[in-house]
Amino acid sequence: MPPKASKKKQPAAAKKAVKRASRGSVKKSVYAFGKKTEGNAKMRNLLGGKGANLAEMAAIGLPVPPGFTITTEVCTYYYQNKKTYPAALEAEVKSAVAAVEKQQGKKFGDKKDPLLFSVRSGSRESMPGMMDTILNLGLNDDTVEGLAKKSGNARFAYDCYRRFIQMYGDVVMGVQPKSENHPEPFDHVMEGLKEELGIEEDNALSAENLQELIKRYKALIKQRTGQSFPQDPWKQLWGSVGAVFSSWQNPRAIVYRQKYNIPAEWGTAVSVQSMVFGNMGDDCATGVAFTRDPANGEKVFYGEYLINAQGEDVVAGVRTPKPIAQLADEMPKAFKELEAVRRKLERHFRDMQDFEFTIENKVLYMLQTRNGKRTGLAAVRIAVDMNREKLMKETTAVQKIPAESIDSLLVPIFDPKALQSGKVIGTGLPAGPGAASGKVVFTANAALREVKAGHKVVLCRTETSPEDLKGMIAAEGILTSRGGVSSHAALVARQMGKVCVCGASNIRIDYERRTLTAGDVILKEGDSISIDGTTGEIFEGAIATTESEVNRVLHGRMKGDKGETFKLFETVMGWADKYRTLKVRTNADSPEMSKAAVAYGAEGIGLCRTEHMFFEGDRISHMREMILASDEDQRRKALKKLLPYQRNDFKGLFRAMEGRPVTIRLLDPPLHEFLPHDDTARRGLAEKLGVSQEVINERVKSLHEENPMLGHRGCRLGITYPEITEMQARAIFEAAAALAKLKKPIPVQPEVMIPLIGFAKEFEHQAEVVHRVAAEVMEEKKVKIKYTVGTMIEIPRAALTADDIAAKADFFSFGTNDLTQTTLGLSRDDMGSFYDEYKEQEIFNQNPFASLDTVGVGKLVKTAADLGRSAKPGLKLGICGEHGGDPSSINFFHNAGLDYVSCSPPRVPVARLAAAQAALRAAGK
Amino acid sequence: MPPKASKKKQPAAAKKAVKRASRGSVKKSVYAFGKKTEGNAKMRNLLGGKGANLAEMAAIGLPVPPGFTITTEVCTYYYQNKKTYPAALEAEVKSAVAAVEKQQGKKFGDKKDPLLFSVRSGSRESMPGMMDTILNLGLNDDTVEGLAKKSGNARFAYDCYRRFIQMYGDVVMGVQPKSENHPEPFDHVMEGLKEELGIEEDNALSAENLQELIKRYKALIKQRTGQSFPQDPWKQLWGSVGAVFSSWQNPRAIVYRQKYNIPAEWGTAVSVQSMVFGNMGDDCATGVAFTRDPANGEKVFYGEYLINAQGEDVVAGVRTPKPIAQLADEMPKAFKELEAVRRKLERHFRDMQDFEFTIENKVLYMLQTRNGKRTGLAAVRIAVDMNREKLMKETTAVQKIPAESIDSLLVPIFDPKALQSGKVIGTGLPAGPGAASGKVVFTANAALREVKAGHKVVLCRTETSPEDLKGMIAAEGILTSRGGVSSHAALVARQMGKVCVCGASNIRIDYERRTLTAGDVILKEGDSISIDGTTGEIFEGAIATTESEVNRVLHGRMKGDKGETFKLFETVMGWADKYRTLKVRTNADSPEMSKAAVAYGAEGIGLCRTEHMFFEGDRISHMREMILASDEDQRRKALKKLLPYQRNDFKGLFRAMEGRPVTIRLLDPPLHEFLPHDDTARRGLAEKLGVSQEVINERVKSLHEENPMLGHRGCRLGITYPEITEMQARAIFEAAAALAKLKKPIPVQPEVMIPLIGFAKEFEHQAEVVHRVAAEVMEEKKVKIKYTVGTMIEIPRAALTADDIAAKADFFSFGTNDLTQTTLGLSRDDMGSFYDEYKEQEIFNQNPFASLDTVGVGKLVKTAADLGRSAKPGLKLGICGEHGGDPSSINFFHNAGLDYVSCSPPRVPVARLAAAQAALRAAGK
Repeated sequence: MPPKASKKKQPAAAKKAVKRASRGSVKKSVYAFGKKTEGNAKMRNLLGGKGANLAEMAAIGLPVPPGFTITTEVCTYYYQNKKTYPAALEAEVKSAVAAVEKQQGKKFGDKKDPLLFSVRSGSRESMPGMMDTILNLGLNDDTVEGLAKKSGNARFAYDCYRRFIQMYGDVVMGVQPKSENHPEPFDHVMEGLKEELGIEEDNALSAENLQELIKRYKALIKQRTGQSFPQDPWKQLWGSVGAVFSSWQNPRAIVYRQKYNIPAEWGTAVSVQSMVFGNMGDDCATGVAFTRDPANGEKVFYGEYLINAQGEDVVAGVRTPKPIAQLADEMPKAFKELEAVRRKLERHFRDMQDFEFTIENKVLYMLQTRNGKRTGLAAVRIAVDMNREKLMKETTAVQKIPAESIDSLLVPIFDPKALQSGKVIGTGLPAGPGAASGKVVFTANAALREVKAGHKVVLCRTETSPEDLKGMIAAEGILTSRGGVSSHAALVARQMGKVCVCGASNIRIDYERRTLTAGDVILKEGDSISIDGTTGEIFEGAIATTESEVNRVLHGRMKGDKGETFKLFETVMGWADKYRTLKVRTNADSPEMSKAAVAYGAEGIGLCRTEHMFFEGDRISHMREMILASDEDQRRKALKKLLPYQRNDFKGLFRAMEGRPVTIRLLDPPLHEFLPHDDTARRGLAEKLGVSQEVINERVKSLHEENPMLGHRGCRLGITYPEITEMQARAIFEAAAALAKLKKPIPVQPEVMIPLIGFAKEFEHQAEVVHRVAAEVMEEKKVKIKYTVGTMIEIPRAALTADDIAAKADFFSFGTNDLTQTTLGLSRDDMGSFYDEYKEQEIFNQNPFASLDTVGVGKLVKTAADLGRSAKPGLKLGICGEHGGDPSSINFFHNAGLDYVSCSPPRVPVARLAAAQAALRAAGK
Repeated sequence: MPPKASKKKQPAAAKKAVKRASRGSVKKSVYAFGKKTEGNAKMRNLLGGKGANLAEMAAIGLPVPPGFTITTEVCTYYYQNKKTYPAALEAEVKSAVAAVEKQQGKKFGDKKDPLLFSVRSGSRESMPGMMDTILNLGLNDDTVEGLAKKSGNARFAYDCYRRFIQMYGDVVMGVQPKSENHPEPFDHVMEGLKEELGIEEDNALSAENLQELIKRYKALIKQRTGQSFPQDPWKQLWGSVGAVFSSWQNPRAIVYRQKYNIPAEWGTAVSVQSMVFGNMGDDCATGVAFTRDPANGEKVFYGEYLINAQGEDVVAGVRTPKPIAQLADEMPKAFKELEAVRRKLERHFRDMQDFEFTIENKVLYMLQTRNGKRTGLAAVRIAVDMNREKLMKETTAVQKIPAESIDSLLVPIFDPKALQSGKVIGTGLPAGPGAASGKVVFTANAALREVKAGHKVVLCRTETSPEDLKGMIAAEGILTSRGGVSSHAALVARQMGKVCVCGASNIRIDYERRTLTAGDVILKEGDSISIDGTTGEIFEGAIATTESEVNRVLHGRMKGDKGETFKLFETVMGWADKYRTLKVRTNADSPEMSKAAVAYGAEGIGLCRTEHMFFEGDRISHMREMILASDEDQRRKALKKLLPYQRNDFKGLFRAMEGRPVTIRLLDPPLHEFLPHDDTARRGLAEKLGVSQEVINERVKSLHEENPMLGHRGCRLGITYPEITEMQARAIFEAAAALAKLKKPIPVQPEVMIPLIGFAKEFEHQAEVVHRVAAEVMEEKKVKIKYTVGTMIEIPRAALTADDIAAKADFFSFGTNDLTQTTLGLSRDDMGSFYDEYKEQEIFNQNPFASLDTVGVGKLVKTAADLGRSAKPGLKLGICGEHGGDPSSINFFHNAGLDYVSCSPPRVPVARLAAAQAALRAAGK
């Protein structure tokens, strides 16, 4: 059933629409385009991207077949009123159809010269391939004859009709494969007929063959649905409109929205456009093109077309289309026009465009344009180039690059040495740059299964369809044997930043035998394969990867010319640093990690987890000795042994950070995490410590907790065992003192962070210990160290009483991982058993541990920030949970007034760019 | 070190004081009483209870020795300024002393006729025995001679001096027992001397003996502290003042404040009063009295005194004092005066008073008065009586009864039959009514140890002291062999509602041998004993208990005369119901519990936990079958078997509640709780279900969670297995339908409650299932059932997004148990390992699971209530966590605007009274 739109997320327009709808008086629901154009590109919320841009293109004089758009408000009404329409809609549609009839000089349903329509969906954000399209609408047993006569091309007319029946049967009447392993039923019928006739190509079917096919298609529909294919063009039209609206809630649209965080409440518009035909003969064509290369961003005219074909043929990858350059030879005039259109579109829309065109009897028509999806690399290059070409302002360029894109400049590439010995078994179109290795899988389900089992996979399909989306998301890379650069596989891979090689025509994929054959190499499901989405090469087996060019330059492992990619990276990071106000720190607890993070631009350590330091070598024995101690004296003895290790850890860290601030979190996890879990290890420990195993078992038992996440950990440890806090504080300040006393003193900024504070008194208790030890060390070592003491905010109570805590603390750092767990009452470790269902039901739009739940957890962050600053105006605020590297969360943190975010070292560049975007967005730039 | 007062809790006066203090200009710090009186009873926040009431008594013409009070603001200053005083204090004290000197015609420190002072503490709330008192201040080697000459009683003078040295040495100079097992050092010295002299009674020490004792006391001090006892009276005074302020933070004061929830920030005042002497000879006396019996509330003059004794002698229980009635014979004039004072005090203070007096050479002096602590029974009786006597308005009477007191009318009493065969081994004073059985223990530590091990104990001491407080709190009852009704034991027992028999002079307690001897019966530590605090009887062994008179009447198990206690109960409950606006429901899940709760006045069920219903008999097998089901079909099959049981459960519940609303919570706990935990049980289950044990082990393993509290439970179960929700909804509505279709239909108000909601969409999902099933059942059974669907608010996110949820829900019920766990990030099951430390450090003022953390959790409750009502103004709000029976939490819930609280059946009367008090308090009555 359709979900009701929640009050919160509804866009203002939709809200108004609901209000009006409930009074039964929807205003204008239908907007015309063509000679008379009522919309424009800015109206995408109301008309969808497709409708708005059709209107815009018509308005700037591009050749757009006339039509009209039914608004997204009607979609909202539709779902809120049991799938019915506003009362006034029918009349508006009738009058819009009449206007098109007038302009085209044809009548809808006219038996002699029928006006035909395409019906297509279009939401605010483009969701390519996600929703359903119907072409040739208006054909029936009578009008098809008229079309045949009028066009003088019976084969064309019947081909249009059978296509329409097929699309209508699938989309509107629900005649679909019975399961994943069943063939598409209409295709199945067609293949059967072709076999009977001994025909291989669709094109070879004659008009008569097509008439037979139409008969069989209609029978299929009747048999599967009990209903006849409707002959009334108006019934066809309303059925199609309803199907487009319904497709907004089909499973693949839902998956897509989740992936891209598109609210279900936006709804889709429906564009109804008069048909032009790329399949009327050899002076006809249809194609898809980009104003620049969407895979690598180069400024070349890029695209593909098919002669004598209709719309979906190109995208569906059924026939492999020709590169757009060939059109210059085949239809020089149309190509020239198209080149002009390409330039006009970029100048007008000031972004790389992805457009559809049809050539009907040598005349060019534009069917769609939109900002083109592009790979991360392309996004970066296009923004940099367009800024250089003065098509984009710098501030626009910064915002045009999805922050995640930067990652694609940093991901590993195949190791050149390994590549040399790798066996190339085929080549395809490089549709998503990068290096991917994994097990061969042939279905989305197999992909999901293997990934759940911890394996990497490459999804190999003849072609992909929206049904494969989940598998594509799960896979490392996508390989198809059919389809061009605008095929579904290429499109999705581009948008998701997936490695993709498509249209690799020299490989054969056999779903039944579950094999991939390339020459004499046969790979079975489960075998390893590697694909290079930058070159299009396919390799047998797993090829080792190595770090990217950008990484090598950053970390000083590449001499000489820095390469073009690095220059792009440098330019974009330069922009980011110019506009961002949020500082970016890193979560690191070793000198190596810290140095890497600094190379990525980290401005400090936002979270050093000290517990990681206790697991190496001897330390774990001392740590265990401490835990097993029967009294404070013994505990202190063990802690004394840990002190020199810990002090050295901090020295290394301080050195690596060269005077940048270093936030050190005191011991956080429950103690049982440090004790051995299996019997053998416990026996060994008992021998080592010279106690009976009973003692260890007893202690393990006494440390067991029902809910360790909510147990004896964080500052609760430091309060019950202040000697632990003392040791850690001593290690910190002794390390700082040692560096300060070097001949060439190294500056140090320690920020001591107390974890899991819920009560201001807890903080006071622990801060007192830290201050006392700091004073002792400074006195002993005769140095002065500047330091601060602050707290994590990771428990709701801390956020709710942040003013009390701020009165005592020098800084807050939001621990949004634990804050999410407690605020949502949700254990990250245990949500696996219901997470899928929650995604399915759209309860979680996104994984709340990956992207901040701004409504719930965010409210506490904002509350704490505001209360904290009310008590201490200059309070330093940061965030060190995993959300610190997530662009949409970073946007939230910027708006909440935080001073910095902290994330893992490789996320630092993404965070820098996201921070700049947040600043520009907030400034309305 | 002294804690800094937190900003939040500081009373306004203290805040001002701090502000002034920080400017160095404290206003008036010293208030006189006597001929010129500057304070009054309303100034208890500033002068402490003692100082305020001394001023009040002086003002209404009672004989109060003159003196002055140093304010609580000075105490606050003292702790915030490293134990120093405001600059102006010294001059103020000097001038106050001068004023007393003038009035008394004596000089402080005068060698011939010295003015002596008592120095006593007094905080806003009386904390009897908790802080330190010093008498006879101003004596030194010179002034003692003056006192001896002037009084003509050298023995008296030296006795005063040795008492002063002892108190000063203990309280100010810290000469205290080295451990629990060591004797009090001054007593030890005195006992030694007495032994040398062959003397048994203190009284038998001559003036010369006392001079020797004084010498030895001074030597003791020197030896233990390295310092001499100070001879300068001013030094003595300032030392004592500082000691009183310091005593505010001594361990027993902290324990007491925690028990009674007194903020550390209040601080204490110091009252300095000129001495009068009850120990000058046989026409002198000192005593403590109550205007009514504090144990049972009867209107009799009640108290005790000692001839020729000083202050602490009576309370300390060293000599067993005489009942106050005897004073009529021994000092008829003074007694008559005292009777007049008694009446005057009650008329003036309009409450039962607890006062101290001294008779010096036949002249009566009043040293203190305060509202008397009383047992629960006494609190009820006194309030009812005083209202009848027109000394208290009804609204005052309601507020004068601590809500918890009602419990003491309901607690079990000894079974009369068991009593008949019980062996009485002694009798004492009935100081705390009720019945207590338990193991004999002789020390507070032993009491704590045994109680931790799960046993009940009766703490048996010759007399108790503040050091025993923790043990007294832990014990079921307290038995002492010495001390009267105003002894420490009696006082504390009264206040805590502990069963207490004191001054049982026929038993002997031997700490060394760890025995209690009563005639020929010798009980060892660990043996069982029973005490009846209503009659004063002591029994060997454990005596069975039975329900109280009030309970028997309420539950219809007592015929004939209802008895006086029941009438008191009825009166008070009548008042409560008249003034309260909060409804009181109960948490019950069986017809028996429900009926009991209705008898206690419950107005509905606020929480029926359905999971309890699945553990009995066959049900658990079906439940396990459901959990082990491999698919939905099997699950539905098992659920179908559970349906009739569940339907019958609800029928029983609805019947018992006779049309009152019944809130039913759908299945909440994680499923693994229903599976057997040990190997044998699993084998049995495997056989029963005809599956291999492997299957069961696997399922148990797959259901294991790291943090089950935050795992797959609550509505998360219903969302992943909607068939469970369906079954439960069906059972509810079929039960309701069955009752509606009876010949005599029974009205039913089901309220279906969805647990653990964090997202509005979760609620929508589950509510949809419930509404669908309700419609189905109503259709099938052709009846209409009025019902509502609401949610628990028990996760912070639910509170933060309560407006979204309220838009869909009919009611909210706050699950404050889980809300506390998540808001504080604190597992109730796991906090044992640090709870004691947290109490000790005063991080928890109270157990947050017993009394609502109003600052943190309460903020979320208020937020949710406000947001919920903003979205749905009539939203019904209740609370069903354990805080629903806690008076201070109830007060909070009243103010937060809730409609009802729900608690366990026996807490219902307490909740009714607490609700009335909250309403009156909020109305400023």
